[in-house]
Amino acid sequence: MSGTTYVAVVGGGAADAPHLDVAREVGRLLAERGAVLVGGGLGGVMAASAAGAAEAGGIIVGLLPGSDRRDANPHVTVAITTGLGEMRNALVVRAADAVIAVGGEYGTLSEIAFALRTGVPVVAIGSWALPDVAAVGTPEAAVDLALALAEARA
Amino acid sequence: MSGTTYVAVVGGGAADAPHLDVAREVGRLLAERGAVLVGGGLGGVMAASAAGAAEAGGIIVGLLPGSDRRDANPHVTVAITTGLGEMRNALVVRAADAVIAVGGEYGTLSEIAFALRTGVPVVAIGSWALPDVAAVGTPEAAVDLALALAEARA
Amino acid sequence: MSGTTYVAVVGGGAADAPHLDVAREVGRLLAERGAVLVGGGLGGVMAASAAGAAEAGGIIVGLLPGSDRRDANPHVTVAITTGLGEMRNALVVRAADAVIAVGGEYGTLSEIAFALRTGVPVVAIGSWALPDVAAVGTPEAAVDLALALAEARA
Amino acid sequence: MSGTTYVAVVGGGAADAPHLDVAREVGRLLAERGAVLVGGGLGGVMAASAAGAAEAGGIIVGLLPGSDRRDANPHVTVAITTGLGEMRNALVVRAADAVIAVGGEYGTLSEIAFALRTGVPVVAIGSWALPDVAAVGTPEAAVDLALALAEARA
Repeated sequence: MSGTTYVAVVGGGAADAPHLDVAREVGRLLAERGAVLVGGGLGGVMAASAAGAAEAGGIIVGLLPGSDRRDANPHVTVAITTGLGEMRNALVVRAADAVIAVGGEYGTLSEIAFALRTGVPVVAIGSWALPDVAAVGTPEAAVDLALALAEARA
Repeated sequence: MSGTTYVAVVGGGAADAPHLDVAREVGRLLAERGAVLVGGGLGGVMAASAAGAAEAGGIIVGLLPGSDRRDANPHVTVAITTGLGEMRNALVVRAADAVIAVGGEYGTLSEIAFALRTGVPVVAIGSWALPDVAAVGTPEAAVDLALALAEARA
Repeated sequence: MSGTTYVAVVGGGAADAPHLDVAREVGRLLAERGAVLVGGGLGGVMAASAAGAAEAGGIIVGLLPGSDRRDANPHVTVAITTGLGEMRNALVVRAADAVIAVGGEYGTLSEIAFALRTGVPVVAIGSWALPDVAAVGTPEAAVDLALALAEARA
Repeated sequence: MSGTTYVAVVGGGAADAPHLDVAREVGRLLAERGAVLVGGGLGGVMAASAAGAAEAGGIIVGLLPGSDRRDANPHVTVAITTGLGEMRNALVVRAADAVIAVGGEYGTLSEIAFALRTGVPVVAIGSWALPDVAAVGTPEAAVDLALALAEARA
């Protein structure tokens, strides 16, 4: 499905309840809009966004840092054991047409920076504030903007 | 779906009709058996196996060497633009529980060797003959053996 | 030389004169202190730090994003054509015991964030301000602190 | 030193005495001829070729699979902790203008195949026999041919 839009949802592997709620809604909306969800395949924001996308029947790709597929959260459609460690963050971004960051710490910042470096648009909700990152307040706004930026780039 | 078996089907990007027929049947049988098909996402054996799996409603992951998702064959469920060049061959193998090689040249040999080096079982049809590769004669035998070896390894 | 300290100097591929002067002095001091300089192998801060290290007879490793060794600046001792694109930023950090950031934009930020994510200490001169990055004012302070942090980590 | 020739010497991490002697001589001759030696940085043929190159004052790059620089053999000039696991085999080949294989098992075969796939010439001594691999009988012949093939390719 090369005509489909792929959106990476990135954020902390450990996240508080509000961020998890946002991530779940982002995932659900992306799936409803027909986008493939790309992520790191583990817990926290990764699992919550995957759960949301799964509720809406979406396709979820989890690019795992390690070599054991059982590390994946139960919502991913396909789990890829990259064995690249944190370097897989770059792969998550590279596979996506746009990135939505929800909260997050340094791992998330690495993904945002890698995206900005390589021209992948980034939308953020309660995440790192950077000049070229579009900060929005709701899951709806994040998904609308990410899909619009992805389309403009295609 | 971490309990699912992932099988990589590898082979030439340009292949003759008999190899393509074998690859298509291998893909179809894997999908019927519920396995996720992993491959390089391009043409030849990669496209034929993906087409077969798609016919049976299977899930197909294409790990592309480049950065343009439009390079993917039309049958893949998800196309990951790795940007790793031929190094993505190692990623194809790493993501799989077993490898089925159909024909193929040096790229395929790199995947077989990488699999043998890292303990991923390899089944071959009309491909490179190596001491630790199980050579079989039919798609049915290839799929049966690959799934059995994958299961024994789990 | 596994007992040697490896320090990555990261910063913009295009940089202004003050940053280039700082980078050159950082490179020179690292080489005088016996550290191996790791970097991206291209221009700007990468070339200036390499030039400084070369003046002091140091060893300089350039991890290039592309496949053509002629892209390397003329000061590197060894140039590794990784073919990983910007993903090689993660490799630069991974190969180092500490990171010194001089100025820099999003590529540099990706390296800082990747370092912080993976526990590699980061010292910055006129670069991104982040809670866990030690900001210093002079090349001497940067090198002293980076080597002390690297040693404390060993 | 972008004008320098880089030659990868690949072979088993455990090797018998004759292969180790060959590897050492290959390393020594490459260093005498001014080539940079690239390898996997560990034991067996990797360590023997590095030891030979070090005797002749050469530069040796060890691209390690893991994250601990102390895994490197004591002869390498620079040790890069790639953290890529066996995928670093592809990086060893990618960094080289030619490959010399000495003995070796499946890891070595993966490097030979990857080289042939990507157009890097391969010379072999007592290693895998393949149509496009030049088999030679002595270290002198291996080094002569590898350097000639590397030069013809430049």
